[in-house]
Amino acid sequence: MNIHIINGPNLNLLGVREKSIYGDSSFETYLAGLKSRYPDVNITYYQSNVEGELINKLHEIGFSEDGIVLNAGAYTHTSVAIADAIAAITTPVVEVHISNVHKREEFRHHSFLSSNCKGIIVGFGMDGYRLAIESLIVK
Amino acid sequence: MNIHIINGPNLNLLGVREKSIYGDSSFETYLAGLKSRYPDVNITYYQSNVEGELINKLHEIGFSEDGIVLNAGAYTHTSVAIADAIAAITTPVVEVHISNVHKREEFRHHSFLSSNCKGIIVGFGMDGYRLAIESLIVK
Amino acid sequence: MNIHIINGPNLNLLGVREKSIYGDSSFETYLAGLKSRYPDVNITYYQSNVEGELINKLHEIGFSEDGIVLNAGAYTHTSVAIADAIAAITTPVVEVHISNVHKREEFRHHSFLSSNCKGIIVGFGMDGYRLAIESLIVK
Amino acid sequence: MNIHIINGPNLNLLGVREKSIYGDSSFETYLAGLKSRYPDVNITYYQSNVEGELINKLHEIGFSEDGIVLNAGAYTHTSVAIADAIAAITTPVVEVHISNVHKREEFRHHSFLSSNCKGIIVGFGMDGYRLAIESLIVK
Amino acid sequence: MNIHIINGPNLNLLGVREKSIYGDSSFETYLAGLKSRYPDVNITYYQSNVEGELINKLHEIGFSEDGIVLNAGAYTHTSVAIADAIAAITTPVVEVHISNVHKREEFRHHSFLSSNCKGIIVGFGMDGYRLAIESLIVK
Amino acid sequence: MNIHIINGPNLNLLGVREKSIYGDSSFETYLAGLKSRYPDVNITYYQSNVEGELINKLHEIGFSEDGIVLNAGAYTHTSVAIADAIAAITTPVVEVHISNVHKREEFRHHSFLSSNCKGIIVGFGMDGYRLAIESLIVK
Amino acid sequence: MNIHIINGPNLNLLGVREKSIYGDSSFETYLAGLKSRYPDVNITYYQSNVEGELINKLHEIGFSEDGIVLNAGAYTHTSVAIADAIAAITTPVVEVHISNVHKREEFRHHSFLSSNCKGIIVGFGMDGYRLAIESLIVK
Amino acid sequence: MNIHIINGPNLNLLGVREKSIYGDSSFETYLAGLKSRYPDVNITYYQSNVEGELINKLHEIGFSEDGIVLNAGAYTHTSVAIADAIAAITTPVVEVHISNVHKREEFRHHSFLSSNCKGIIVGFGMDGYRLAIESLIVK
Amino acid sequence: MNIHIINGPNLNLLGVREKSIYGDSSFETYLAGLKSRYPDVNITYYQSNVEGELINKLHEIGFSEDGIVLNAGAYTHTSVAIADAIAAITTPVVEVHISNVHKREEFRHHSFLSSNCKGIIVGFGMDGYRLAIESLIVK
Amino acid sequence: MNIHIINGPNLNLLGVREKSIYGDSSFETYLAGLKSRYPDVNITYYQSNVEGELINKLHEIGFSEDGIVLNAGAYTHTSVAIADAIAAITTPVVEVHISNVHKREEFRHHSFLSSNCKGIIVGFGMDGYRLAIESLIVK
Amino acid sequence: MNIHIINGPNLNLLGVREKSIYGDSSFETYLAGLKSRYPDVNITYYQSNVEGELINKLHEIGFSEDGIVLNAGAYTHTSVAIADAIAAITTPVVEVHISNVHKREEFRHHSFLSSNCKGIIVGFGMDGYRLAIESLIVK
Amino acid sequence: MNIHIINGPNLNLLGVREKSIYGDSSFETYLAGLKSRYPDVNITYYQSNVEGELINKLHEIGFSEDGIVLNAGAYTHTSVAIADAIAAITTPVVEVHISNVHKREEFRHHSFLSSNCKGIIVGFGMDGYRLAIESLIVK
Repeated sequence: MNIHIINGPNLNLLGVREKSIYGDSSFETYLAGLKSRYPDVNITYYQSNVEGELINKLHEIGFSEDGIVLNAGAYTHTSVAIADAIAAITTPVVEVHISNVHKREEFRHHSFLSSNCKGIIVGFGMDGYRLAIESLIVK
Repeated sequence: MNIHIINGPNLNLLGVREKSIYGDSSFETYLAGLKSRYPDVNITYYQSNVEGELINKLHEIGFSEDGIVLNAGAYTHTSVAIADAIAAITTPVVEVHISNVHKREEFRHHSFLSSNCKGIIVGFGMDGYRLAIESLIVK
Repeated sequence: MNIHIINGPNLNLLGVREKSIYGDSSFETYLAGLKSRYPDVNITYYQSNVEGELINKLHEIGFSEDGIVLNAGAYTHTSVAIADAIAAITTPVVEVHISNVHKREEFRHHSFLSSNCKGIIVGFGMDGYRLAIESLIVK
Repeated sequence: MNIHIINGPNLNLLGVREKSIYGDSSFETYLAGLKSRYPDVNITYYQSNVEGELINKLHEIGFSEDGIVLNAGAYTHTSVAIADAIAAITTPVVEVHISNVHKREEFRHHSFLSSNCKGIIVGFGMDGYRLAIESLIVK
Repeated sequence: MNIHIINGPNLNLLGVREKSIYGDSSFETYLAGLKSRYPDVNITYYQSNVEGELINKLHEIGFSEDGIVLNAGAYTHTSVAIADAIAAITTPVVEVHISNVHKREEFRHHSFLSSNCKGIIVGFGMDGYRLAIESLIVK
Repeated sequence: MNIHIINGPNLNLLGVREKSIYGDSSFETYLAGLKSRYPDVNITYYQSNVEGELINKLHEIGFSEDGIVLNAGAYTHTSVAIADAIAAITTPVVEVHISNVHKREEFRHHSFLSSNCKGIIVGFGMDGYRLAIESLIVK
Repeated sequence: MNIHIINGPNLNLLGVREKSIYGDSSFETYLAGLKSRYPDVNITYYQSNVEGELINKLHEIGFSEDGIVLNAGAYTHTSVAIADAIAAITTPVVEVHISNVHKREEFRHHSFLSSNCKGIIVGFGMDGYRLAIESLIVK
Repeated sequence: MNIHIINGPNLNLLGVREKSIYGDSSFETYLAGLKSRYPDVNITYYQSNVEGELINKLHEIGFSEDGIVLNAGAYTHTSVAIADAIAAITTPVVEVHISNVHKREEFRHHSFLSSNCKGIIVGFGMDGYRLAIESLIVK
Repeated sequence: MNIHIINGPNLNLLGVREKSIYGDSSFETYLAGLKSRYPDVNITYYQSNVEGELINKLHEIGFSEDGIVLNAGAYTHTSVAIADAIAAITTPVVEVHISNVHKREEFRHHSFLSSNCKGIIVGFGMDGYRLAIESLIVK
Repeated sequence: MNIHIINGPNLNLLGVREKSIYGDSSFETYLAGLKSRYPDVNITYYQSNVEGELINKLHEIGFSEDGIVLNAGAYTHTSVAIADAIAAITTPVVEVHISNVHKREEFRHHSFLSSNCKGIIVGFGMDGYRLAIESLIVK
Repeated sequence: MNIHIINGPNLNLLGVREKSIYGDSSFETYLAGLKSRYPDVNITYYQSNVEGELINKLHEIGFSEDGIVLNAGAYTHTSVAIADAIAAITTPVVEVHISNVHKREEFRHHSFLSSNCKGIIVGFGMDGYRLAIESLIVK
Repeated sequence: MNIHIINGPNLNLLGVREKSIYGDSSFETYLAGLKSRYPDVNITYYQSNVEGELINKLHEIGFSEDGIVLNAGAYTHTSVAIADAIAAITTPVVEVHISNVHKREEFRHHSFLSSNCKGIIVGFGMDGYRLAIESLIVK
C-alpha cells in the first residue's frame, strides 16, 4: 500500500518553530518511527513552502497512490487552488492539523480543503499523522 | 482502560435515518465489533436526545474515566452549555462526526465544542469512533 | 387518519401567557373544538418544554402517524436537533406558528425547521392548527 | 363573500415553467376546481408581471373586497412598494407561496410582505391557495 | 420657471393611507395651495406606481425642465434603475420624503437615489415639497 | 418574602469547575451564608442542567413568588425559550452572572434574557446573588 | 437563425447619457452595423424601462427564438423576477454589460441573472453585443 | 421668533478648509446675509469643536428657543451623546449638512441624530441653513 | 471609605429629561438619600457632558479612592478613551445604567467599558447606584 | 498580431479533471483548433500552478504583446498579487472562465482581477477563449 | 524647523499606566532626550484628554508648523472629527502608536486618521516619535 | 550589523509600474543610496514574486540576521503562510509599505503580517525603508 504524506508551508521548521504549539522534534524523526510502526505501508514524504508546488505534487501522485495525508499548513485557510487540486484527483486525501486550530485565531477555523477531503483530523499533535494512516488502511 | 462513548440527538436512529448520509447499520451493531477489536479497553455507551442529560452524563463520568468519545450531533453547533461541561471536567474528550460536516449546510461548519476538546475527527463514517479510541489509547 | 399535534416550550401557558399575542383560551379548550370539527380524524396531543423530549416524541410517532402538526415555539429558531429529527422521520410535518413571527423580533424570522417541513402556516392565531390539519387530510 | 386572488411575475407560466417545482397544470385549471369547491365564495383572479400594476390592483380592490390571496412571486423578496401597498389598504391579505421557499436560494427566505399580512402559507403546492381561502372564510 | 413634482408608489393614497404617518389631506389639495404660493413657478405633477413609468417620465422631462422634486416612495430603497435615470438626465433633482424615514424600519434608512440628487429633504411632512421648491428657485 | 434562586447548566460544579473563574466553594456553602444574612427572606434554591426543566420551574413559581434570581449559565446566550418563559411569567426576574462575561468569549457578550429581566448584575462573583436579593427586597 | 436583443432601463439613452461610460452613439446606429455584419442572422431589438415588460417579452420569445442577448441594465442587480423569467424559458440567454461593472459601485458587482444565463460578457463596450451573437451562432 | 444655529467640529474653518467641498466664504459672512433676509427672526450662532460643549449648549437653549438648526459635523456619525441630548430637550432640531454626505465616505451615510430630529436637509450647500429656518418659521 | 459617583452626558437632566425612562427626581435629591443611608461612606459626586473631562476626573481620583461608580451615559457605547482610562487607573470601577439598555436600541447593547470594570449593574433605576455602593463596601 | 493565453492552477488537468464541469478534451487539443481558425494571429500558450510564476509571465510579456487571455483559475478569487500585476502591465488582459462561476460556490463569485481587466467572459466553456481572441482582434 | 508633538487621551499617564504595554518613563523624560538629539529642530509638545481641544490645537498650528506628530490614542479609532481636522489643515501629520495596535483588541486595528496622514508608524515603542521626526526632516 | 531587505510581488517593477503611486526610480537605484548612507550596516536585498520563495528566504536568514525589512506587497493582505513564517523565525521583522495603503482599496487596509512584526511603517514612499533601518539600528 502506497501512502504519501505532504506537508505545507513552515512545517519544515517542526522542532525549531514555536515549540509550545508544535513540539520539539523534527518531522523526519517522527517519520522514522511511523515507518517502523507500519512496515507493510510504503510511506513517502514531501514538503514545500510553495503553494503551486504542492499542487504539482498532488497532480503527480493523485491518480495512482492509495492515499494522501495532507497538512497544508496556512494554505488550508487561503487556498482555493489546493482545494481544487484535491477535487481534481482521485486518490483520497485526509486533512491533518497538528494543533487544535479551533483554539487559535478565528481565520484558522475555516478550511477551504475540508469539503473535498475524505476526512479531517485535528488537534492530536504528531499522532494525527498516524491516525490518518489508520483511517486509510482500515477495511 | 475505561473509555465512554456518548452520542447525542437523533443518533439513536443510526441505521434507520438518512441512510445515504449515515449508513444502514445501528450503532449497537458497530459497537459490538469495536469492543471485540479492543478487548483491553472497557468501552461504555450512552445516548440521549436531551441536551441537559448529556451534560449530566459528562459531569458523572468526567472526573474518573480515561477518555470520552463524544458525538454531540446537532448540539455541536448550538450548545454552549455542553462546551462548558467539557471545559469543566478533567477527562479528555475527543469530538467525532460521522459525516463530513463541511460538505453540508453552513451552520454545521461551526462547533462550539472543538476548542475545548483534545482533538476532532470528522468524516470517516463509523470508523471515526475507532480512530478516536486509537487516539486515546496510544502512548 | 391519525394526526399528532405537538406543542413546544411555553405553549402550555396558552390562555395565561401574553394574552395580547396568544389569545386567552387554553389549548385544551381549542383542541376539543377541533376534534369535534374533524370527527373522522384521530387527533392526539403532546406538549413539552424539553427540546430532547420533543425529539423523543417525533421519533416515537414519526414512522407510523399520517401527519404531524408541530409548533416548536422558541426552539424553532435555535434547534438544529429538532430539524434533524424532522428530516430523519418519514411522517410529513407541518410547521405552525400562532402569531405572525415576522412582526416580532428579528431572531424569530428564521426557522431551522422550515426547510425540512411539508409546509409552513404562520400568523392565523389558533386557526393555524386547523389549516394544518386541512392541509394533511386533503387529497 | 368576495375574495381576490392575485398572482405576480412568472406565475402566468404555471404548468409550463419549471414543472419539477411548480407542477404541470395551469392556474386557470386549478382555479376552476377551486371555484366549484367554494360555490358560496365569489373568487376573482388577476395576474401581472409588472410590480406597479400589482400595486394598482391592490389599491383598486383593497378597500372593498373581503379578502386577498397574494402570491407576489419574486417581488416578495424585493418589493418594499408592494409591502407598503398591503399596509395601506384595509382588506386582509394572505401571503401564499407554492413551493417551500426555505428549501431554495437564501434570497428567497426573506419576504418584505409577511409582516404586513394576516398570515402566511408556504410550501403546500397549489393547495396553498385553498388553505388561504379557508383561512379567510372561517369564523 | 418650470418645476416638476413626481410622486412614486402608494403616494396616490395620501390622505387615505396610514394617516398617522402621512396626514389626512390628498396631494391634490396640497398642490393647489403650493401653486398659489408660488405664482411665478410653473408646477407640474405626475404620479405612478410603476417604476419604469417613473423612469420614462424622468427621461421625458429631465433635459428641459428647471428642476424636479422627486418622492420615489418605496422605490427609493430598492431602485438602482431610478438612480441611474437621475444620473443620466441633466435637470437637478431634489429628493423628498414626507415622513422621517430614519425613525422607521432600517431598510428605509438607505436611499439609492441620494448620491445622484442635488439635495435631500426628509421629515417635514408635506412642507418638504415647498422646501424643495425653495431650494430650486433660490439664487 | 419568598425569593427563588435558579442556577442553570454546570453551576452544580461550582467549587469544582474552573476555580480560577468561579472560585472554590460550592453554591450550597454560599447559600447557607446568604440565608443567615437575610433571615426575613425565604430563599429557595433550584439547579438543573436541562433547559426545559428550568422553564418548568419558572412556570411553577413564576406567578406566585416575590422574586427570582436567575443565573442561566450558558443557556443565557442560546435560549429563546427561557427568554420567552421569563416574559410569560409575572414574578420579576433578576439576571446574574458570577464572572464578568464581557471579559470572556464574544458569544458570551449577548444575552437573550436581559431584555425580559428587571435588571442585570454581572461580574461581582458570588456576591452578585446577594446584590440581586438586595435589589428585590429594597423599597 | 433568430436572435433577440433586449435592453433594459436607461439604455434608450445610449449616446445621450453619461458618454464617458457608455460612448456617444445610439444603440440604433450600432444595431444597423451589427445586422450588416451578420446577414444570415435575423436580429430583432426591444427596449423597455419597465421590469415587468421585460419579463413579458422574455415569456413571449423565450420558447421559440434561437438566442437572447440581454442587457438588463440596473435591473441586473435587483430583479429576482427577471432571473426567474430566464430560468422559466428555454431559449438560451447571454448576459451583456457595456461597461466593466466591476470598476463601478459595489452594488453593481452582483447579478441575480448570471446563474441562470448561458454565459456572461462584461466590459467590452458595444462590442459585447457582437461577442454575445458570436457565442450563440458558433457550433 | 428665536432660532439658534449650532455648528460642530471644523465648521469654524468654513471658507478656509477644503474649499472644493465647502465653498470659500466664512460662516460669519453667510450669517450676516441670512439675518438681513429674515429681519423678524432672532438668529443666534454658536460653534464648538468639543462634543460635550455642544451638549451643554443644547441643554442651555433646548427648553426655551423656538428652533435649533444643528450641523454637528463629524459628530453626526459618532455621537450617541448628542443624539440623546436632542431627545432630552423640547425645542425642535433641524439637522443640516452642507455637502451631500451620501456622495462621500460610507461612514458619513449614517447619522445618529436623524431619528431624533424634526427633519433633515442635506446637500444644498450653505443654502441648507436658510431652508432649515424656512422649515421652522412656516405655519 | 471614599466612593466617587461619576455621571456622564445628559445625566444632569435627570428628573427633567425623558421621565418615562429615567424617572422624575433629580440626581441631587437621590444622592442626599443615598448619603444618609450610608453614613460611614464618604460619597462624592461629579457630572460632566465632556468625554475628556470624565477622563480627567478618572485620572484625578483613580489612584486613591476606594471605589468609583460610573454611569458614562451614551459614552458607554462609543468611548474607547474612557475604557482606556478605566484600565489605566487602579481604583475599582462599577458600571451602572439606570434603564435596562437591552430593551432599547441595539447600539446601546454594547459597552466598551464593561470588560475593564469590576462589575456591571443594569436596569434597576436609581437603585442601581445603591447596589453599586453595596458591591464596593461588602467584604 | 501576438496574443498570449495564460492558464492558472489545475487547468493542466483539462480533459482529465471533473469532466462534468470542464469537458473531456485537453487544452492542447483545443488550442490546435483555435490556431487554425485564426491563422493571422500568433497565439502562444503558458500554464503554471504557481501564483508567482504567473506573475513573472505577465511581467515578461505584459509590455510587448498585443493581448493576453487569462484564466487564472482559483487564483482569480484569492490573488491580489496577480491583480496588481495586471494593473502594472500595459497589454490589455481579457479574463476568461470556462464554467459559469456564478452557478458554483459563493467564493467563486468574486474576482480580484475583473476591475483591472479589459473585459470578462464567463460560462461559454472552451469557446470563451475564442470569444476573448475575437474581442482583442476586432477593430 | 518647527515640529509639534500632540498626544491624546491617557497618554499623560505614560510611565504610570499599564507599564507592560507602554513602558515606565514619562513622556516628559523622553521628550528631553529627543530635543537634545535634534538640536536644530524646534519641538513643541501638547497633550489633552479632550477630543475637541485636540482639534482646536490642530487648527491653531496646522497652517504654519512644518510638521505634526500625532498620537491620538483611543480617539484614533473613534474620531471622524479629528480625521476631518487633519484633512482641513495643511501641515503634514504623521500618525504614531507606541504599542503594536494589531496585537491588541480588534477595534484598535482600524484608524479613522490614517487615510488623511502623510504616513503611519506603529509598534516601535517611544522610538516611534523619533522615527516620525526623522520622516519629517529628511529631504 | 546585518540587515536584509525583502520585497514581494510586483516590486521588481518599481520605477516602471504605476509611477503615480510608486515613483519612477528603480529599487536598485534607491538601494545604492541607502547603502552609502549607512556604511556600517551590511544591507542585503532579495525580491521574489513567489509567496513560497519569500517564506524560504525568511527561513534561511531568520535565525541569524540582525533585522529584516519586509515589504510583502499584495501578499500582505492574503498570506497567512508568510505571517506564520515571521512568527516562526527569531530575527525581528519591520513591515514597510511605500504607499499609504489606507488611502487605497479596502482590502489593502488589513495586514495578516502586522501582529507578528516588530513595527509597521506605512506611506512614506521609498523613505520607509530608511526609517525601518533606523528603527532596527537605534539603541
